Amino acid sequence: MSIDLGRPGDFHVHLRDGAMAELVTPQVHSGGASVCYVMPNLVPPLDNVPAVLDYHKKLQAIDNRPKYLMSLYLSPNITPETIREAKSKNIYGVKCYPAGVTTNSAHGVGSYEPFFPVFAEMEKCDLVLNLHGECPSTGNINVMNAEPEFLPTLKMLHQRFPKLRIILEHCTTRAAVEAVKECGDTVAATITCHHLFLTVDSWGGNAFNFCKPVAKFPDDRQALIDAATSGSPKFFFGSDSAPHPLEAKTKGKNASAGVFTQNASIAYISEAFHQSGNMENLKKFVTDNGKKFYKIDDSELGKETVRLVKRPNKIPEVIEHEGVVVVPFMAGETLEYSVEWV
Amino acid sequence: MSIDLGRPGDFHVHLRDGAMAELVTPQVHSGGASVCYVMPNLVPPLDNVPAVLDYHKKLQAIDNRPKYLMSLYLSPNITPETIREAKSKNIYGVKCYPAGVTTNSAHGVGSYEPFFPVFAEMEKCDLVLNLHGECPSTGNINVMNAEPEFLPTLKMLHQRFPKLRIILEHCTTRAAVEAVKECGDTVAATITCHHLFLTVDSWGGNAFNFCKPVAKFPDDRQALIDAATSGSPKFFFGSDSAPHPLEAKTKGKNASAGVFTQNASIAYISEAFHQSGNMENLKKFVTDNGKKFYKIDDSELGKETVRLVKRPNKIPEVIEHEGVVVVPFMAGETLEYSVEWV
Repeated sequence: MSIDLGRPGDFHVHLRDGAMAELVTPQVHSGGASVCYVMPNLVPPLDNVPAVLDYHKKLQAIDNRPKYLMSLYLSPNITPETIREAKSKNIYGVKCYPAGVTTNSAHGVGSYEPFFPVFAEMEKCDLVLNLHGECPSTGNINVMNAEPEFLPTLKMLHQRFPKLRIILEHCTTRAAVEAVKECGDTVAATITCHHLFLTVDSWGGNAFNFCKPVAKFPDDRQALIDAATSGSPKFFFGSDSAPHPLEAKTKGKNASAGVFTQNASIAYISEAFHQSGNMENLKKFVTDNGKKFYKIDDSELGKETVRLVKRPNKIPEVIEHEGVVVVPFMAGETLEYSVEWV
Repeated sequence: MSIDLGRPGDFHVHLRDGAMAELVTPQVHSGGASVCYVMPNLVPPLDNVPAVLDYHKKLQAIDNRPKYLMSLYLSPNITPETIREAKSKNIYGVKCYPAGVTTNSAHGVGSYEPFFPVFAEMEKCDLVLNLHGECPSTGNINVMNAEPEFLPTLKMLHQRFPKLRIILEHCTTRAAVEAVKECGDTVAATITCHHLFLTVDSWGGNAFNFCKPVAKFPDDRQALIDAATSGSPKFFFGSDSAPHPLEAKTKGKNASAGVFTQNASIAYISEAFHQSGNMENLKKFVTDNGKKFYKIDDSELGKETVRLVKRPNKIPEVIEHEGVVVVPFMAGETLEYSVEWV
């Protein structure tokens, strides 16, 4: 039994830099993606066009098989002029991090109004706005309701900029799924691999399952599975694969937030679809919907395509390169599906 | 400025065995407690009277300053006869762990009805039933609602055995505080140090703050602070100090659940009361209410009393004994209060 998945995309990846980039970038292809959307939260953040183009070259030098869709980091350095420059250089979007909510977000956004001229220019130039949809914890806002608390902001931005394509990245709650459905066609959401498996029980005492946004309640997880398997063009795959070196996960406190899934991204998703008893819309979720939203044509991608085959796929305990060690999601477990490039 | 706290009690401690017991048992006194209620979840669990008495001797041999109130572990080995034997040997109560919810609870209880004859005998003999009030995670039950889901069981047991003294141990939610208030005088609750400080945001990625029951929402924390500072005899101090060796907290996954607070137990509580702006009922919470519930008279305790003084109290980064290393709660931080024995 095999399924032709065409040229899948992973529309939310963290490829880092240095030795870590050398380790994880080739895994985009190994995991089964022809195209990926690259997040700009390096240190320092990629908030100008030359830095993004330079990073693009580095990634291509490591592995030129995938197409890398590049993005800018929204900061006060970004102006409408930056957006026009980005457009001319084929940069696809701008990632907006609320300050302080996740890895390397310290330079992120406190309030949205100052960026309205930037968003207006993005709408005009047809760049995508990628939202990390969480409010910072304060008062009664906490990691469990940080995303629902953000949804009025999503709706406000959509209302003000109805033609601006907006993606609510790595959505984790039923409330978020509903909010995205209620918005017009210009609003979509990515869903990760790990949020189809994990709940709030999974990350207490397990730093490898700890990410932001955190995995929520069983009912939220079900809503994500339902959205992913629905075939709706509003939901597509973005792994938010976020590698951290082993030592950042095993110091007991202040473990870095992020789950690494790049190495088997399409296989994890296939496993979740299989477990839900619904393989029918798998290709829509991992291949068709995201490329349509980003307006990517298969002619821009490599010739090889992915065939999903039912073959035991053991996830290694660790992945290593030049002294950098990363523990993948579900390390040591065996998935039912593997990908082959044909 | 100083406050006479008399002879405080810590009515929920884990003193372990071996080198760990040698490390933590003397901390009952250092932390400021004249009396403590000792949990029976050793490996194997203490589910017979001779084992409990043997453990009592070992603890006294390590440090004979505190009075140790001993308990049995509820398992199928406990019969009404065990209860009568326990009563004759001055064992104070029976701890009930739902199977699989926390450290060394694998031998715990699946359903309560089979133990009704034991509870009836406990009611007759006036032994205390200590409840770990969580339902195991399954379906929509998860670590965040595991305690509220347990509250109907608390109410059922109270209704069936109205004279049985029951303690809902380490309560963590507003729902639990309300449920305990709604029950009669025979039902009380302990509250830990760390749940007066932590919320759901505190334990993601921080294994030293990870415990069962997990810390809940900010509103739940406020309910605990309000209950502890209220002076109500239904709420008193039980640290649930639960030491684990450093390596059990730093392996990344499957970190052991438990926060270690024994070394500065009364100082942590004083800090929380101080931060809430209400020191008035501190002595009721740490000294009077618990001893009244357990029917302990000061004449049974040591001559020394505790004076709380406003003096910087730096929590060490680690506490160590014969190669066993434990990281205390708020390691490296400085509390405003210290205890002195006078």
